[in-house]
Amino acid sequence: MARADKGSQRRGIMHSGSFPGEPIIMNWVHAIVVLALIEYLIFCILVGRARAKYAIAAPAVSGNEMFERYFRVQQNTLEQLIVFIPAIILFARYSSALWAAIIGAVFVLGRIIYAAGYISAPQRRGPGAGISFICEVLLILGALFGIVRSLMAA
Amino acid sequence: MARADKGSQRRGIMHSGSFPGEPIIMNWVHAIVVLALIEYLIFCILVGRARAKYAIAAPAVSGNEMFERYFRVQQNTLEQLIVFIPAIILFARYSSALWAAIIGAVFVLGRIIYAAGYISAPQRRGPGAGISFICEVLLILGALFGIVRSLMAA
Amino acid sequence: MARADKGSQRRGIMHSGSFPGEPIIMNWVHAIVVLALIEYLIFCILVGRARAKYAIAAPAVSGNEMFERYFRVQQNTLEQLIVFIPAIILFARYSSALWAAIIGAVFVLGRIIYAAGYISAPQRRGPGAGISFICEVLLILGALFGIVRSLMAA
Repeated sequence: MARADKGSQRRGIMHSGSFPGEPIIMNWVHAIVVLALIEYLIFCILVGRARAKYAIAAPAVSGNEMFERYFRVQQNTLEQLIVFIPAIILFARYSSALWAAIIGAVFVLGRIIYAAGYISAPQRRGPGAGISFICEVLLILGALFGIVRSLMAA
Repeated sequence: MARADKGSQRRGIMHSGSFPGEPIIMNWVHAIVVLALIEYLIFCILVGRARAKYAIAAPAVSGNEMFERYFRVQQNTLEQLIVFIPAIILFARYSSALWAAIIGAVFVLGRIIYAAGYISAPQRRGPGAGISFICEVLLILGALFGIVRSLMAA
Repeated sequence: MARADKGSQRRGIMHSGSFPGEPIIMNWVHAIVVLALIEYLIFCILVGRARAKYAIAAPAVSGNEMFERYFRVQQNTLEQLIVFIPAIILFARYSSALWAAIIGAVFVLGRIIYAAGYISAPQRRGPGAGISFICEVLLILGALFGIVRSLMAA
């Protein structure tokens, strides 16, 4: 967690990426966030390919069930990421960066299970959706618990 | 705003959640962000229940107007959160954490009014939508003002 | 990058908006984030106007191709912002705040090209979509590279 030297700062480069007081493990939390974004971009690419394969011309987003499965996988992941990203950061800061990274890794795996299940058959989306949901609830409750504890200690 | 002790840091735990130089009131801003995420997750759960109640089988997201109301409440909240979350954090950092928390609380209340209005009748979604929109504009303009002031002072 | 004085902190105001160790150019990165949010809010306003002009009553989001073009421009921008915002912040922190600001500015311009292309004809959405996608991939890969470097240096 060495701080950037003055020359690096002048060039707008901060090698460590972490702030003073941040535990080193925040790097792992950020790595998980990046992995979740890469996973989502792959889902976006699959939607583009499905659009061509099943001949759904823009701006339509319905009309073929296989296309809709790919589209809903991407859309649902977007709907989850809006919670996941702020929640993992706040959980890491207020509760535990280590547990944030672990729960975040489970979330990323859960999304693979969700996508594979949904694309094979919509009724098989349950287990993956459940894993993501439990991870988000844990991250939110842990963040809330940590924030309340901070407010009471202040 | 006591810093985490060295032992806590080694375990990846940072009790205060705040960085040096951050006002204590940032804890309140983060609490509002968590409340907004919990509110949104409740909207997600309501969509799941509406899917069962109105018999809309995945991957479809249309076909029953009542289901579509619940779905649009969740989708529209997602569309707002992508602005709200970065804007409240930047407003808090560059303008006022206190006002960020206050405007954020109004936003969260505005979303309840929006959801209750929309579900009762789509044409009653106006007031809640307006409250959210005004809060977002205030947060964005306040953040922009603060950033420009910082750039001019640098 | 002067720190807020003690009086400002008590009132919850932090004039500089930057943390110790953050390069001043982070202000420019945050300015680009705010511009991207303003651009997106404009797309949201255009959807509202298209809803009235093409007489699409809520909760419907389809039924008129022109409305659907405006709606997809906004939706697709949302789908990109969920990647863009975390990626530009992590890229700035782990790789280069200067390059984050430059790539971010290209992304914001790319979205204007995307919107103008899509609204004129859906098949003209390609170049703008490509610019956004390349910017996101650069930001994600740069962030990932910086994080891995930090983890190896720790």
